[in-house]
Amino acid sequence: MPLKLAVYPGSFDPVTFGHLDIIDRALQVFDGVIVAVAKNSEKNSLFTVQERCDLLSQTLADRPEARIDTFDGLLVDFVQKRGATVIIRGLRAVSDFEFEFQLAQMNRSITKKVETLFMMTSVPYSYLSSSIVKEVSSLNGPVDKLVPPLVKAALDAKFNR
Amino acid sequence: MPLKLAVYPGSFDPVTFGHLDIIDRALQVFDGVIVAVAKNSEKNSLFTVQERCDLLSQTLADRPEARIDTFDGLLVDFVQKRGATVIIRGLRAVSDFEFEFQLAQMNRSITKKVETLFMMTSVPYSYLSSSIVKEVSSLNGPVDKLVPPLVKAALDAKFNR
Amino acid sequence: MPLKLAVYPGSFDPVTFGHLDIIDRALQVFDGVIVAVAKNSEKNSLFTVQERCDLLSQTLADRPEARIDTFDGLLVDFVQKRGATVIIRGLRAVSDFEFEFQLAQMNRSITKKVETLFMMTSVPYSYLSSSIVKEVSSLNGPVDKLVPPLVKAALDAKFNR
Amino acid sequence: MPLKLAVYPGSFDPVTFGHLDIIDRALQVFDGVIVAVAKNSEKNSLFTVQERCDLLSQTLADRPEARIDTFDGLLVDFVQKRGATVIIRGLRAVSDFEFEFQLAQMNRSITKKVETLFMMTSVPYSYLSSSIVKEVSSLNGPVDKLVPPLVKAALDAKFNR
Amino acid sequence: MPLKLAVYPGSFDPVTFGHLDIIDRALQVFDGVIVAVAKNSEKNSLFTVQERCDLLSQTLADRPEARIDTFDGLLVDFVQKRGATVIIRGLRAVSDFEFEFQLAQMNRSITKKVETLFMMTSVPYSYLSSSIVKEVSSLNGPVDKLVPPLVKAALDAKFNR
Amino acid sequence: MPLKLAVYPGSFDPVTFGHLDIIDRALQVFDGVIVAVAKNSEKNSLFTVQERCDLLSQTLADRPEARIDTFDGLLVDFVQKRGATVIIRGLRAVSDFEFEFQLAQMNRSITKKVETLFMMTSVPYSYLSSSIVKEVSSLNGPVDKLVPPLVKAALDAKFNR
Repeated sequence: MPLKLAVYPGSFDPVTFGHLDIIDRALQVFDGVIVAVAKNSEKNSLFTVQERCDLLSQTLADRPEARIDTFDGLLVDFVQKRGATVIIRGLRAVSDFEFEFQLAQMNRSITKKVETLFMMTSVPYSYLSSSIVKEVSSLNGPVDKLVPPLVKAALDAKFNR
Repeated sequence: MPLKLAVYPGSFDPVTFGHLDIIDRALQVFDGVIVAVAKNSEKNSLFTVQERCDLLSQTLADRPEARIDTFDGLLVDFVQKRGATVIIRGLRAVSDFEFEFQLAQMNRSITKKVETLFMMTSVPYSYLSSSIVKEVSSLNGPVDKLVPPLVKAALDAKFNR
Repeated sequence: MPLKLAVYPGSFDPVTFGHLDIIDRALQVFDGVIVAVAKNSEKNSLFTVQERCDLLSQTLADRPEARIDTFDGLLVDFVQKRGATVIIRGLRAVSDFEFEFQLAQMNRSITKKVETLFMMTSVPYSYLSSSIVKEVSSLNGPVDKLVPPLVKAALDAKFNR
Repeated sequence: MPLKLAVYPGSFDPVTFGHLDIIDRALQVFDGVIVAVAKNSEKNSLFTVQERCDLLSQTLADRPEARIDTFDGLLVDFVQKRGATVIIRGLRAVSDFEFEFQLAQMNRSITKKVETLFMMTSVPYSYLSSSIVKEVSSLNGPVDKLVPPLVKAALDAKFNR
Repeated sequence: MPLKLAVYPGSFDPVTFGHLDIIDRALQVFDGVIVAVAKNSEKNSLFTVQERCDLLSQTLADRPEARIDTFDGLLVDFVQKRGATVIIRGLRAVSDFEFEFQLAQMNRSITKKVETLFMMTSVPYSYLSSSIVKEVSSLNGPVDKLVPPLVKAALDAKFNR
Repeated sequence: MPLKLAVYPGSFDPVTFGHLDIIDRALQVFDGVIVAVAKNSEKNSLFTVQERCDLLSQTLADRPEARIDTFDGLLVDFVQKRGATVIIRGLRAVSDFEFEFQLAQMNRSITKKVETLFMMTSVPYSYLSSSIVKEVSSLNGPVDKLVPPLVKAALDAKFNR
């Protein structure tokens, strides 16, 4: 049996406990997970693509089956170039659902060789997003329960604290 | 690497092209798929559990990696007894999403060893359900594009045609 | 130009101001509207099909372009037999939307000759349904703003007041 | 200032930690909360209205500002008879939202003197409902994190364990 | 019993009849309502924070229990500084629901001392938002039924009429 | 009987097979369809209003009952000036539904003489939007099944291929 690889794409601006939860659960199902930072998400982002990869690398240092990578262009092309056949996406809410449905159908219309699989976000992270983390942190609110300590430190640095 | 088995549970009353699409796509990701007919869905059903299993067996005869089984009791117990770690569910619409979200969270609260993965129904089957098939068939409408010929024959027999 | 006929199907158990609003607005667009009571909706209904047709007839007495009819079997067959090409449906809420979407797609898979057009319920009737009318009336609550006087009288009679 | 009383209506078949969470949070806002069991919800229920009230009484024994009561007829009439002006409802999901929206608008069309206020269910209980508790318990699954011990004991007794 | 104060936060760019409806209904439940204009909503706004406060002050001149204020930083901090324990939010649609759910859960993760209560928008205002008012007014459409006369005058002035 | 004209407004940046499907189905119901490009949608658009009209004209060359036009100001004013009484809109998803509901109610509050009718997007186009076409094309992905050849050529030209 060949190794089963899954790609988990996103902006990760920055990585949250919600992302880590999905990565850990995907690692239970697949032999490896490629965490793929979208390069074209740089505009309007708080962290550069490099900074986001660094935060991911440090956070995932103890999960050797999780690899950090970046991509631009069509996601399904990237997935195939990496020898993976599965895209993993987290679903939190109805609004996610519709957007993800469109995306998955679009990707399927390009190739049938890549399958998108969805996981429901774990209950404690169902209200959590990178946007909310940035909003709360920018107002100097508590983010300890939302992101790892090194991400909190990076947020503090960005907001000059 | 051990074999990766997924369980695809449901009523399958009767199996439709929408179910077959999910099974075929799951077979591309996992080494085997156990199609599990819920025994407690017998009330208000058109076909008996045995009839539903027979229709599935005949329909899936040429997919040896798909196995038909039945279950009652807690789904996560069944999944673990079969040596599987993944539940596969199809998502069509927002109303599916909320119900499935509740179910997946419930199952996760019972055990973290079983993961639920969701696939978006393929576009041509996004409006298709066993209920609609039964409704249309009961009115003698065309179901050729919705179910395999042998299921159509079984529906005709049920409705005394 | 041939006359444009639209069919407005439903249970009408009983007719409400919400239905009348849709009928009046459909009459502004089409040359005639056939209000079609579904015969197979009799189980669990409060009024018989005949009673529902009578309430509709009296309510619509002053709209000669609205005709009351009944149907069973496939709706699209009925529409074509009546020489109509359009089905009219009211949309109130997201849950309506998904159900109606399924129905419309199903009907289109049977024939492309019948088109389903949707109207958004007028704001004052967006929370109104026959079920709510029956629930409120059964508890002897006020329904004057929800149904015409003759329907209110019929409800009072049904609930032995 | 007169005391502010809120009514929290429902089936409570049986009471769950989700209900208790809403009651406790309502008690922080209002001077008293009347937990009102709907009498007309007896059909298809697992527990009788009396049993449900007993489980509520025991569970809420240490919250003197919470009072257990029953009602039939129009909810807004009951609310006013008890000298309350507020109805409290919990919202978990989009499907709740639409149903509750209809109900709240209906109640407002009957009287403007009663206001419905909604609370979002706390995150850990966002997937929890009495139906799911009964389903899991009937399959002998674990409900310890979903209901208080005395409710678990009552469920075990109902299911002859 | 101490006074029960509620905070009603928003952009109010500009205040509409929908906002006034929520404020009036909140005043029936609470002893006072602090209408809190978010300072960080200035970018992309039509009116300055000062202008929005002025329009609110004039509109609410005859409701002494409603006080106008501004805030930046974390909303829950502002609420507690003002001696209030409740945040009031209006819900119109499913999309509101999900966003508000996230916000309310976020606020609860920061402090349990502040409770968010939701009101369903009254039916005539269920399609109304400040954005739609600005859009219609910019096209010189009628807004008389959407905003008070003095707000209409301010809109006319902004659009140089 | 006067001719029944319908207006189909939008950005059409660029026209897709989804738009053409709605236009063709609207032409079966109405005597003529005015495809109305919104002038105020120029900012953030890929094609100028003129380019969009040209693409529409060429694509619709063989449908003489479809006329291309542009509008700014209130849509309902444009509709009436053109002697039409109906606005046609396509519905794909729940998020469309809520936005369109607001718009339709707003238009109805301005005039009762114009009716908005909705069509459910055909199944193969339910995930298709101009935005997705532009996104895929910008990444040099395949759009042959999404837009006519001449639109594909125009996209290639825009993206310097």
